[in-house]
Amino acid sequence: MANRTTLKDVARAAGVSQMTVSRVVRGDTVVSLRTREHVERVIGNMGYVPNKLAGSLARAHSNQVAVLIPSLVNNVYTSVLAGITEGLERGGYNPVVGVTEYDLQKEEAQLISMMSWRPAAVILANLVHTDRTRSILENTPVPVVEIMDISGDPIDLCVGLDHEAAAATLADYLMERGYRRFGYLGWQTNDFVAAARFRAFRARLETRGYGLVAPDVYDAPPDMPAGKKGLEMLLSVAPKTEAVAYSNDTAAMGGVNLCLELGMRIQDDLAIAGFSGLRMAQCLPQPLTTIRTRRRDIGKTAARNVLKRLSGTPVERKVDFGFELLKGQSA
Amino acid sequence: MANRTTLKDVARAAGVSQMTVSRVVRGDTVVSLRTREHVERVIGNMGYVPNKLAGSLARAHSNQVAVLIPSLVNNVYTSVLAGITEGLERGGYNPVVGVTEYDLQKEEAQLISMMSWRPAAVILANLVHTDRTRSILENTPVPVVEIMDISGDPIDLCVGLDHEAAAATLADYLMERGYRRFGYLGWQTNDFVAAARFRAFRARLETRGYGLVAPDVYDAPPDMPAGKKGLEMLLSVAPKTEAVAYSNDTAAMGGVNLCLELGMRIQDDLAIAGFSGLRMAQCLPQPLTTIRTRRRDIGKTAARNVLKRLSGTPVERKVDFGFELLKGQSA
Repeated sequence: MANRTTLKDVARAAGVSQMTVSRVVRGDTVVSLRTREHVERVIGNMGYVPNKLAGSLARAHSNQVAVLIPSLVNNVYTSVLAGITEGLERGGYNPVVGVTEYDLQKEEAQLISMMSWRPAAVILANLVHTDRTRSILENTPVPVVEIMDISGDPIDLCVGLDHEAAAATLADYLMERGYRRFGYLGWQTNDFVAAARFRAFRARLETRGYGLVAPDVYDAPPDMPAGKKGLEMLLSVAPKTEAVAYSNDTAAMGGVNLCLELGMRIQDDLAIAGFSGLRMAQCLPQPLTTIRTRRRDIGKTAARNVLKRLSGTPVERKVDFGFELLKGQSA
Repeated sequence: MANRTTLKDVARAAGVSQMTVSRVVRGDTVVSLRTREHVERVIGNMGYVPNKLAGSLARAHSNQVAVLIPSLVNNVYTSVLAGITEGLERGGYNPVVGVTEYDLQKEEAQLISMMSWRPAAVILANLVHTDRTRSILENTPVPVVEIMDISGDPIDLCVGLDHEAAAATLADYLMERGYRRFGYLGWQTNDFVAAARFRAFRARLETRGYGLVAPDVYDAPPDMPAGKKGLEMLLSVAPKTEAVAYSNDTAAMGGVNLCLELGMRIQDDLAIAGFSGLRMAQCLPQPLTTIRTRRRDIGKTAARNVLKRLSGTPVERKVDFGFELLKGQSA
C-alpha cells in the first residue's frame, strides 16, 4: 500500500496542467489526440484512478444498483444474480449485493443502509416486504424492480412468473400420470414463492379429491442433504407414497440419491418431481420431471428494465416469463 | 415513484428544526429521548432515507467493498461470495460485485470502474492480474485481499490454499490405491488455480513413471453436462482408463451419471475423483472421493481481514486454509 496517486501527481509526471488531466479523464475532446494519449499512458503507468464520488454527489445517485436477494447458496438466486450482473454490465452499472436470508427485517435494514448511498435503482426479491421497506421504495425516485413473483401489484416494476400456476401444472400432470398418494418436500415458510407453490400444489390436488401425505413433515432448506433426509422421514411416516414433489431440483436430486441407495426404482416404486429445471438434474440417468423457470433471463430483464427506465424508455410494468413443464423420466 | 422525501419535509411534518432531524439521524444524544422517538416515527412513516454520500466524500471512501470474482455459476465462487457477504455484514459493509468471467482484461476494466467509487477495500481472485491492475492495487491506500491462491507473493493480503499440494495429495492417493491409467477432465486454461492443479497432478504422476491418457482432450467449463460429455470423449479415445480426476465435484458428478447410465460400476470399472468437497457429492449413493476446500471460510476470512485492517488490527499477510482428502467410495 502506498499513498494514493492524485491528479496533481499525474499532471506533474505528464508535464501538463491539472485541468488537462481532468479533461482527459472526462473524455473532453478539446485536448489533442497526442496529449490525450500521452496523459492516458501516464495515468496507466501510475495506477491513477479518477474520483467520481464528487461527480456523483452532484448527480445525486451512483452507478450502483442495490440488489437484495434471499440467498447465495440457493442455485436459483445465484442464476438470477448472474443475469442481473450481466444485464447491468452493458450500462456500466455494478450490483451492490445484500443477502437477506429470507428475513424481511434484514431486508429492511440492508435496504436502509443501501439507500443512503443513493443507488441508481433497487432490485429485490418477491412482492412481500415490511411496511417500512414498502414506504421507502414507494418514496424513492429511482426505479424499483421486484423479481420472481408477479402475482400481485408491484411497487414499480416486476419480472418473474406465476408460481401458483406452475405448481398447479405440475399437480395436474402428476394426477394425469395416475399417481394417487402425494408427498411434498423442501418448502420453507419464509420463502414466499416456495410456500405459495406448496399451497397451490396441495389445493390443486384437493380440487380432485386427493391430498398430501404428511404435509407437515418437512420444512427445510431445499438442498440435497435435506432432500434425502426429508424423503427418508416421509417414507417412514407414509411408506405407500407414490409421488413426491420437491420445492426445487437440488432437493429432488437428494431424493433420487436415496432411491438409488435403497435400490428403489425411480418412477416405478416412487415418482419424483422437482422445480427449477436445473441443467444438472437433466443429466441424471433418468432426467428429472420438473418445471423449468427462466431464472437468468429474469435477472437479465430486471437489469435491462432498470437501464431502460433510467434512459427514459417506456418499460412494461409486469413481465411474465412463464414456465415450462419438462416431462422427464422420474415421474 | 414520488419525489424524494427530504430532511426539510421530515422537519416540517415532525414540527421540529432541520438541525434536530439531522441530529436524530446522526444519533446525537443531545436530543431528548421523547423528541428522538417522535422524529424516528415520522422518518419511518415518511420513508425518509438520510443521504450519507456527502459524509463519505469527506471520509473519501465508502462502506462498500469491491469484490471481483470469476464466476457466479461456479459453485466455488458463490460459496466464497456468501462467506464474504456474511463476513462484511458484521462491519456494516456491502460487497459490490463484478464478475470477470476468468478474463484479466475484464477484471482490469471492472476494477477501474469500481476504484473510482473509492471502495473501502478490494477482494479479488487469484494472484495473476494485468500489469495495470497490479499497479492500481499497489498504489491504493485501501486493503487488498487476493483469495483462493496462496502460492505466490500477494499485493497486500491473501487467503486461500495451496492448489498444487492438493493436486499432489490426490495423485498420491490414487496411485496408492493401485490405479495406473489416469485421465483428467474439466480444467480451463484461464482458470489459473484449476490449471495449476492440472499441471501439478500430471507432474506428480510423472515422478512415479505414470502419465495422463488424452491430456488435451477436455478443456471445458467444469459443470455437470461438460463432465459427462468429457468422460464420453475420454473413454472413446482411451477406453482402458482406470481413474479419472475432475477439476471439480460438479463435473465429477456428470461422470458418475454417465457411469450409471452405461451400467459401469464406479470404482471397479472406473474410479472417479473430484475437487471441492461439495456437500451434494457426498450425498451420492457412493460418496465422491475428493479434496475438500474451505471456500466459505476463505470468503469469510477475507472479509474479516478487511475489517481488521480497516480498524488498525494487525493481520496475517497470508492465511492458508489447507485442504482435506475425503476418501469416498468412488475411487
